[in-house]
Amino acid sequence: MKEIQSIAVLASRFSALPSVGRKTALRYAYAVIDMSDDEVNAFCAALRDVKENVRLCDVCGNFTDADVCDFCRTRQKKQICVVSYPKDIAAIENSGAFDGVYHVLHGTLSPMDNRTPDDLNIKSLVGRLDGVEEVIIATNPDVEGEATAVYLARLIKPLGVKVTRIAQGISMGSELEYADAVTLSQALGRRTAL
Amino acid sequence: MKEIQSIAVLASRFSALPSVGRKTALRYAYAVIDMSDDEVNAFCAALRDVKENVRLCDVCGNFTDADVCDFCRTRQKKQICVVSYPKDIAAIENSGAFDGVYHVLHGTLSPMDNRTPDDLNIKSLVGRLDGVEEVIIATNPDVEGEATAVYLARLIKPLGVKVTRIAQGISMGSELEYADAVTLSQALGRRTAL
Repeated sequence: MKEIQSIAVLASRFSALPSVGRKTALRYAYAVIDMSDDEVNAFCAALRDVKENVRLCDVCGNFTDADVCDFCRTRQKKQICVVSYPKDIAAIENSGAFDGVYHVLHGTLSPMDNRTPDDLNIKSLVGRLDGVEEVIIATNPDVEGEATAVYLARLIKPLGVKVTRIAQGISMGSELEYADAVTLSQALGRRTAL
Repeated sequence: MKEIQSIAVLASRFSALPSVGRKTALRYAYAVIDMSDDEVNAFCAALRDVKENVRLCDVCGNFTDADVCDFCRTRQKKQICVVSYPKDIAAIENSGAFDGVYHVLHGTLSPMDNRTPDDLNIKSLVGRLDGVEEVIIATNPDVEGEATAVYLARLIKPLGVKVTRIAQGISMGSELEYADAVTLSQALGRRTAL
Protein backbone atom coordinates (compact mmCIF):
# COMPACT_ATOMS: atom_id res chain seq x y z
CA MET A 1 0.00 0.00 0.00
CA LYS A 2 1.85 3.08 -1.21
CA GLU A 3 1.37 6.83 -1.13
CA ILE A 4 -0.83 8.25 -3.86
CA GLN A 5 1.29 8.82 -6.95
CA SER A 6 0.95 12.60 -7.17
CA ILE A 7 1.67 13.07 -3.46
CA ALA A 8 4.76 10.85 -3.74
CA VAL A 9 6.00 12.83 -6.75
CA LEU A 10 5.53 16.17 -4.99
CA ALA A 11 7.26 14.81 -1.87
CA SER A 12 10.24 13.73 -3.98
CA ARG A 13 10.43 17.31 -5.35
CA PHE A 14 10.51 18.72 -1.82
CA SER A 15 13.22 16.17 -0.97
CA ALA A 16 15.50 18.00 -3.41
CA LEU A 17 15.59 20.98 -1.03
CA PRO A 18 18.48 21.13 1.45
CA SER A 19 18.08 18.98 4.63
CA VAL A 20 14.57 17.82 3.71
CA GLY A 21 14.14 14.11 4.45
CA ARG A 22 11.38 11.73 3.42
CA LYS A 23 9.08 12.48 6.35
CA THR A 24 9.42 16.25 6.14
CA ALA A 25 8.88 16.14 2.37
CA LEU A 26 5.67 14.18 2.87
CA ARG A 27 4.53 16.69 5.49
CA TYR A 28 5.10 19.54 3.05
CA ALA A 29 3.17 17.66 0.33
CA TYR A 30 0.20 17.18 2.65
CA ALA A 31 0.31 20.89 3.49
CA VAL A 32 0.04 21.70 -0.23
CA ILE A 33 -3.20 19.69 -0.44
CA ASP A 34 -4.65 22.01 2.20
CA MET A 35 -3.62 25.14 0.26
CA SER A 36 -6.14 26.99 -1.89
CA ASP A 37 -5.82 26.96 -5.68
CA ASP A 38 -4.67 30.57 -5.53
CA GLU A 39 -1.94 29.73 -3.06
CA VAL A 40 -0.65 26.86 -5.18
CA ASN A 41 -0.68 29.04 -8.28
CA ALA A 42 1.19 31.77 -6.44
CA PHE A 43 3.71 29.16 -5.24
CA CYS A 44 4.28 28.04 -8.85
CA ALA A 45 4.56 31.61 -10.07
CA ALA A 46 7.14 32.36 -7.36
CA LEU A 47 9.20 29.31 -8.32
CA ARG A 48 9.19 30.25 -12.01
CA ASP A 49 9.79 33.92 -11.24
CA VAL A 50 12.95 33.13 -9.30
CA LYS A 51 14.21 30.91 -12.12
CA GLU A 52 13.43 33.50 -14.79
CA ASN A 53 14.44 36.74 -13.10
CA VAL A 54 17.30 35.91 -10.79
CA ARG A 55 20.71 36.05 -12.46
CA LEU A 56 24.27 36.78 -11.42
CA CYS A 57 25.50 40.37 -11.08
CA ASP A 58 27.91 41.20 -13.93
CA VAL A 59 30.33 42.80 -11.46
CA CYS A 60 30.35 40.70 -8.27
CA GLY A 61 28.53 37.44 -9.06
CA ASN A 62 25.82 38.00 -6.43
CA PHE A 63 22.22 37.12 -7.27
CA THR A 64 20.34 40.07 -8.79
CA ASP A 65 17.30 40.81 -10.93
CA ALA A 66 19.11 43.56 -12.85
CA ASP A 67 22.44 43.67 -14.76
CA VAL A 68 24.28 44.94 -11.71
CA CYS A 69 23.21 44.21 -8.11
CA ASP A 70 22.08 46.80 -5.55
CA PHE A 71 25.36 46.56 -3.63
CA CYS A 72 27.51 47.27 -6.68
CA ARG A 73 25.30 50.21 -7.65
CA THR A 74 25.06 51.94 -4.30
CA ARG A 75 27.93 50.98 -1.96
CA GLN A 76 31.44 52.41 -1.48
CA LYS A 77 33.93 50.45 -3.58
CA LYS A 78 37.11 50.83 -1.50
CA GLN A 79 36.45 47.58 0.32
CA ILE A 80 35.49 44.30 -1.30
CA CYS A 81 34.28 41.45 0.89
CA VAL A 82 34.88 38.07 -0.77
CA VAL A 83 32.41 35.29 0.07
CA SER A 84 31.91 31.75 -1.18
CA TYR A 85 28.17 31.91 -1.86
CA PRO A 86 25.44 34.56 -2.30
CA LYS A 87 23.70 33.36 0.86
CA ASP A 88 26.76 34.37 2.90
CA ILE A 89 26.09 37.99 1.95
CA ALA A 90 22.77 37.95 3.83
CA ALA A 91 24.61 36.84 6.99
CA ILE A 92 27.17 39.66 6.71
CA GLU A 93 24.48 42.23 5.94
CA ASN A 94 22.63 41.14 9.09
CA SER A 95 25.72 42.00 11.16
CA GLY A 96 25.50 45.60 9.92
CA ALA A 97 29.29 45.88 10.18
CA PHE A 98 30.18 46.26 6.51
CA ASP A 99 29.23 48.98 4.02
CA GLY A 100 31.41 48.03 1.06
CA VAL A 101 30.78 45.80 -1.94
CA TYR A 102 30.96 42.03 -2.29
CA HIS A 103 32.52 39.45 -4.54
CA VAL A 104 31.03 35.96 -4.75
CA LEU A 105 33.39 33.10 -5.64
CA HIS A 106 30.61 30.52 -6.06
CA GLY A 107 32.60 27.86 -4.29
CA THR A 108 35.92 27.22 -2.58
CA LEU A 109 39.18 25.72 -3.75
CA SER A 110 39.23 21.98 -3.19
CA PRO A 111 41.91 19.72 -4.64
CA MET A 112 39.91 16.75 -3.32
CA ASP A 113 36.88 17.68 -5.42
CA ASN A 114 38.96 18.95 -8.34
CA ARG A 115 37.89 22.57 -7.85
CA THR A 116 40.69 24.80 -9.11
CA PRO A 117 40.89 28.61 -9.28
CA ASP A 118 39.54 28.41 -12.84
CA ASP A 119 36.29 26.96 -11.49
CA LEU A 120 35.71 29.96 -9.22
CA ASN A 121 34.72 33.54 -9.98
CA ILE A 122 38.27 34.82 -9.33
CA LYS A 123 39.39 36.39 -12.62
CA SER A 124 36.73 39.09 -12.43
CA LEU A 125 37.82 39.85 -8.86
CA VAL A 126 41.36 40.63 -10.02
CA GLY A 127 39.86 42.77 -12.79
CA ARG A 128 38.00 45.05 -10.37
CA LEU A 129 40.83 45.90 -7.95
CA ASP A 130 41.49 49.35 -9.46
CA GLY A 131 41.04 51.91 -6.67
CA VAL A 132 40.29 49.20 -4.10
CA GLU A 133 42.04 49.66 -0.75
CA GLU A 134 41.18 46.42 0.97
CA VAL A 135 39.94 42.94 0.12
CA ILE A 136 38.32 41.20 3.10
CA ILE A 137 38.18 37.43 2.72
CA ALA A 138 35.08 36.00 4.38
CA THR A 139 35.14 32.37 3.28
CA ASN A 140 34.08 29.76 5.85
CA PRO A 141 36.64 29.00 8.60
CA ASP A 142 37.18 25.43 7.44
CA VAL A 143 39.98 23.77 5.50
CA GLU A 144 38.72 24.71 2.04
CA GLY A 145 37.81 28.23 3.11
CA GLU A 146 41.27 28.75 4.61
CA ALA A 147 43.00 27.37 1.51
CA THR A 148 40.95 29.70 -0.66
CA ALA A 149 41.87 32.67 1.57
CA VAL A 150 45.58 31.88 1.39
CA TYR A 151 45.41 31.48 -2.39
CA LEU A 152 43.62 34.82 -2.82
CA ALA A 153 46.05 36.62 -0.50
CA ARG A 154 49.02 35.38 -2.53
CA LEU A 155 47.30 36.46 -5.71
CA ILE A 156 46.13 39.92 -4.64
CA LYS A 157 48.81 41.22 -2.24
CA PRO A 158 51.48 41.55 -4.98
CA LEU A 159 49.08 43.93 -6.76
CA GLY A 160 49.47 46.39 -3.86
CA VAL A 161 46.04 45.81 -2.30
CA LYS A 162 45.69 45.12 1.41
CA VAL A 163 44.19 41.66 2.02
CA THR A 164 42.50 40.82 5.34
CA ARG A 165 40.69 37.81 6.71
CA ILE A 166 37.65 37.92 9.02
CA ALA A 167 38.83 37.05 12.52
CA GLN A 168 38.55 33.52 13.81
CA GLY A 169 35.91 34.58 16.31
CA ILE A 170 33.67 32.11 14.59
CA SER A 171 34.47 28.60 15.68
CA MET A 172 36.40 26.29 13.38
CA GLY A 173 34.15 23.96 11.41
CA SER A 174 30.98 26.03 11.69
CA GLU A 175 29.20 27.56 8.72
CA LEU A 176 29.02 31.27 8.01
CA GLU A 177 25.40 31.04 6.98
CA TYR A 178 24.38 30.13 10.52
CA ALA A 179 26.62 32.48 12.50
CA ASP A 180 24.77 34.95 14.73
CA ALA A 181 24.98 38.66 14.01
CA VAL A 182 27.17 39.57 17.03
CA THR A 183 29.78 36.91 16.29
CA LEU A 184 29.93 37.97 12.66
CA SER A 185 30.18 41.63 13.62
CA GLN A 186 33.15 40.85 15.91
CA ALA A 187 34.77 38.71 13.26
CA LEU A 188 34.59 41.63 10.85
CA GLY A 189 35.84 44.14 13.41
CA ARG A 190 38.89 42.03 14.36
CA ARG A 191 39.94 41.06 10.86
CA THR A 192 43.71 40.58 10.56
CA ALA A 193 46.17 41.27 7.75
CA LEU A 194 47.23 38.23 5.69
CA MET B 1 19.66 46.52 1.48
CA LYS B 2 17.01 43.85 1.14
CA GLU B 3 16.66 40.45 -0.46
CA ILE B 4 15.85 40.46 -4.15
CA GLN B 5 12.09 40.74 -4.58
CA SER B 6 11.50 37.42 -6.32
CA ILE B 7 13.64 35.51 -3.80
CA ALA B 8 11.77 37.14 -0.91
CA VAL B 9 8.42 36.23 -2.49
CA LEU B 10 9.43 32.60 -3.00
CA ALA B 11 10.77 32.42 0.57
CA SER B 12 7.42 33.68 1.88
CA ARG B 13 5.71 30.88 -0.06
CA PHE B 14 7.99 28.29 1.54
CA SER B 15 7.22 29.87 4.93
CA ALA B 16 3.63 28.69 4.49
CA LEU B 17 4.80 25.08 4.86
CA PRO B 18 4.65 23.58 8.37
CA SER B 19 7.57 24.44 10.70
CA VAL B 20 9.45 26.42 8.05
CA GLY B 21 10.91 29.63 9.51
CA ARG B 22 12.41 32.66 7.77
CA LYS B 23 15.96 31.28 7.52
CA THR B 24 14.92 27.84 6.28
CA ALA B 25 12.55 29.40 3.75
CA LEU B 26 15.37 31.55 2.41
CA ARG B 27 17.64 28.50 2.17
CA TYR B 28 14.98 26.67 0.15
CA ALA B 29 14.59 29.69 -2.15
CA TYR B 30 18.35 29.78 -2.80
CA ALA B 31 18.26 26.05 -3.56
CA VAL B 32 15.60 26.70 -6.21
CA ILE B 33 17.94 29.14 -7.96
CA ASP B 34 20.43 26.32 -8.31
CA MET B 35 17.84 23.97 -9.83
CA SER B 36 17.64 23.47 -13.59
CA ASP B 37 14.68 24.84 -15.56
CA ASP B 38 13.43 21.27 -15.96
CA GLU B 39 13.53 20.68 -12.22
CA VAL B 40 11.60 23.87 -11.48
CA ASN B 41 9.00 23.02 -14.13
CA ALA B 42 8.64 19.52 -12.68
CA PHE B 43 8.25 21.07 -9.21
CA CYS B 44 5.43 23.30 -10.48
CA ALA B 45 3.78 20.43 -12.29
CA ALA B 46 3.91 18.32 -9.12
CA LEU B 47 2.34 21.12 -7.06
CA ARG B 48 -0.49 21.59 -9.57
CA ASP B 49 -0.92 17.84 -10.01
CA VAL B 50 -1.50 17.33 -6.29
CA LYS B 51 -4.04 20.17 -6.22
CA GLU B 52 -5.87 18.84 -9.28
CA ASN B 53 -5.81 15.09 -8.73
CA VAL B 54 -5.88 14.54 -5.00
CA ARG B 55 -9.40 14.37 -3.56
CA LEU B 56 -11.10 12.68 -0.61
CA CYS B 57 -12.18 9.03 -0.78
CA ASP B 58 -15.98 8.78 -1.01
CA VAL B 59 -15.98 6.04 1.62
CA CYS B 60 -13.36 6.88 4.25
CA GLY B 61 -12.26 10.49 3.64
CA ASN B 62 -8.60 9.57 3.03
CA PHE B 63 -6.72 11.31 0.22
CA THR B 64 -7.00 9.47 -3.09
CA ASP B 65 -6.69 10.07 -6.82
CA ALA B 66 -9.69 7.84 -7.62
CA ASP B 67 -13.29 7.80 -6.35
CA VAL B 68 -12.45 5.24 -3.69
CA CYS B 69 -9.00 4.89 -2.09
CA ASP B 70 -6.73 1.83 -2.33
CA PHE B 71 -7.46 0.82 1.27
CA CYS B 72 -11.22 0.80 0.79
CA ARG B 73 -10.87 -1.17 -2.44
CA THR B 74 -8.48 -3.88 -1.26
CA ARG B 75 -8.56 -4.32 2.53
CA GLN B 76 -10.74 -6.44 4.84
CA LYS B 77 -13.64 -4.38 6.15
CA LYS B 78 -14.26 -6.01 9.54
CA GLN B 79 -12.03 -3.50 11.31
CA ILE B 80 -12.14 0.26 10.83
CA CYS B 81 -9.35 2.38 12.28
CA VAL B 82 -10.50 5.95 12.93
CA VAL B 83 -7.85 8.69 12.65
CA SER B 84 -7.96 12.47 12.79
CA TYR B 85 -5.96 13.23 9.64
CA PRO B 86 -4.84 11.41 6.47
CA LYS B 87 -1.18 11.74 7.52
CA ASP B 88 -1.91 9.59 10.58
CA ILE B 89 -2.63 6.68 8.23
CA ALA B 90 0.97 6.71 7.01
CA ALA B 91 2.19 6.29 10.60
CA ILE B 92 -0.10 3.32 11.24
CA GLU B 93 0.79 1.72 7.91
CA ASN B 94 4.47 2.01 8.86
CA SER B 95 3.77 -0.06 11.96
CA GLY B 96 2.57 -2.92 9.75
CA ALA B 97 0.19 -3.97 12.55
CA PHE B 98 -3.14 -3.24 10.88
CA ASP B 99 -4.73 -4.73 7.76
CA GLY B 100 -8.23 -3.26 7.91
CA VAL B 101 -9.69 -0.05 6.49
CA TYR B 102 -9.56 3.52 7.77
CA HIS B 103 -11.89 6.40 8.48
CA VAL B 104 -10.58 9.97 8.53
CA LEU B 105 -12.40 12.50 10.72
CA HIS B 106 -10.48 15.53 9.39
CA GLY B 107 -10.16 17.01 12.84
CA THR B 108 -11.05 16.42 16.48
CA LEU B 109 -13.89 17.64 18.66
CA SER B 110 -13.01 20.90 20.37
CA PRO B 111 -15.56 23.01 22.21
CA MET B 112 -12.83 25.66 22.66
CA ASP B 113 -12.45 26.04 18.88
CA ASN B 114 -16.15 25.48 18.22
CA ARG B 115 -15.60 22.17 16.42
CA THR B 116 -18.69 20.02 16.89
CA PRO B 117 -19.49 16.50 15.58
CA ASP B 118 -21.17 18.15 12.57
CA ASP B 119 -17.82 19.62 11.52
CA LEU B 120 -16.18 16.20 11.41
CA ASN B 121 -16.55 13.30 8.96
CA ILE B 122 -18.62 11.27 11.45
CA LYS B 123 -21.99 10.73 9.75
CA SER B 124 -20.45 8.62 6.97
CA LEU B 125 -18.66 6.52 9.63
CA VAL B 126 -21.99 5.53 11.21
CA GLY B 127 -23.30 4.76 7.73
CA ARG B 128 -20.60 2.17 7.01
CA LEU B 129 -20.81 0.07 10.18
CA ASP B 130 -22.84 -2.73 8.53
CA GLY B 131 -20.84 -5.99 8.96
CA VAL B 132 -18.09 -4.21 10.90
CA GLU B 133 -16.84 -6.05 14.00
CA GLU B 134 -14.52 -3.49 15.55
CA VAL B 135 -13.86 0.24 15.38
CA ILE B 136 -10.38 1.15 16.62
CA ILE B 137 -10.07 4.78 17.64
CA ALA B 138 -6.58 6.12 16.93
CA THR B 139 -6.95 9.83 17.62
CA ASN B 140 -4.04 11.53 19.39
CA PRO B 141 -3.71 10.87 23.15
CA ASP B 142 -4.42 14.51 24.06
CA VAL B 143 -7.49 16.23 25.50
CA GLU B 144 -9.25 16.71 22.16
CA GLY B 145 -8.33 13.24 20.90
CA GLU B 146 -9.64 11.67 24.12
CA ALA B 147 -12.87 13.67 23.97
CA THR B 148 -13.38 12.58 20.38
CA ALA B 149 -12.75 8.94 21.31
CA VAL B 150 -15.27 9.07 24.15
CA TYR B 151 -17.88 10.70 21.91
CA LEU B 152 -17.43 8.08 19.17
CA ALA B 153 -17.59 5.20 21.67
CA ARG B 154 -20.90 6.47 23.06
CA LEU B 155 -22.23 6.84 19.54
CA ILE B 156 -21.13 3.48 18.12
CA LYS B 157 -21.31 1.00 21.02
CA PRO B 158 -25.16 1.12 21.19
CA LEU B 159 -25.16 -0.03 17.55
CA GLY B 160 -23.63 -3.34 18.67
CA VAL B 161 -20.12 -2.71 17.31
CA LYS B 162 -17.04 -3.23 19.51
CA VAL B 163 -15.12 0.02 20.01
CA THR B 164 -11.47 -0.01 21.11
CA ARG B 165 -8.81 2.66 21.70
CA ILE B 166 -5.10 2.31 20.87
CA ALA B 167 -3.13 1.68 24.08
CA GLN B 168 -1.48 4.51 25.95
CA GLY B 169 1.69 4.22 27.98
CA ILE B 170 5.39 4.99 27.75
CA SER B 171 6.63 4.68 24.20
CA MET B 172 9.12 2.03 23.08
CA GLY B 173 12.73 3.23 23.42
CA SER B 174 11.85 6.20 25.65
CA GLU B 175 13.31 6.64 29.13
CA LEU B 176 11.18 6.42 32.24
CA GLU B 177 13.16 9.27 33.76
CA TYR B 178 11.89 11.69 31.13
CA ALA B 179 8.30 10.46 30.84
CA ASP B 180 5.75 13.09 31.88
CA ALA B 181 3.61 12.50 34.97
CA VAL B 182 0.33 11.96 33.12
CA THR B 183 1.83 9.36 30.80
CA LEU B 184 3.46 7.52 33.69
CA SER B 185 0.27 7.63 35.71
CA GLN B 186 -1.65 6.13 32.81
CA ALA B 187 1.05 3.53 32.14
CA LEU B 188 0.75 2.42 35.77
CA GLY B 189 -3.02 2.47 35.84
CA ARG B 190 -3.27 0.41 32.67
CA ARG B 191 -0.51 -2.10 33.57
CA THR B 192 -0.95 -5.58 32.12
CA ALA B 193 -0.17 -9.00 33.62
CA LEU B 194 3.07 -10.66 32.45
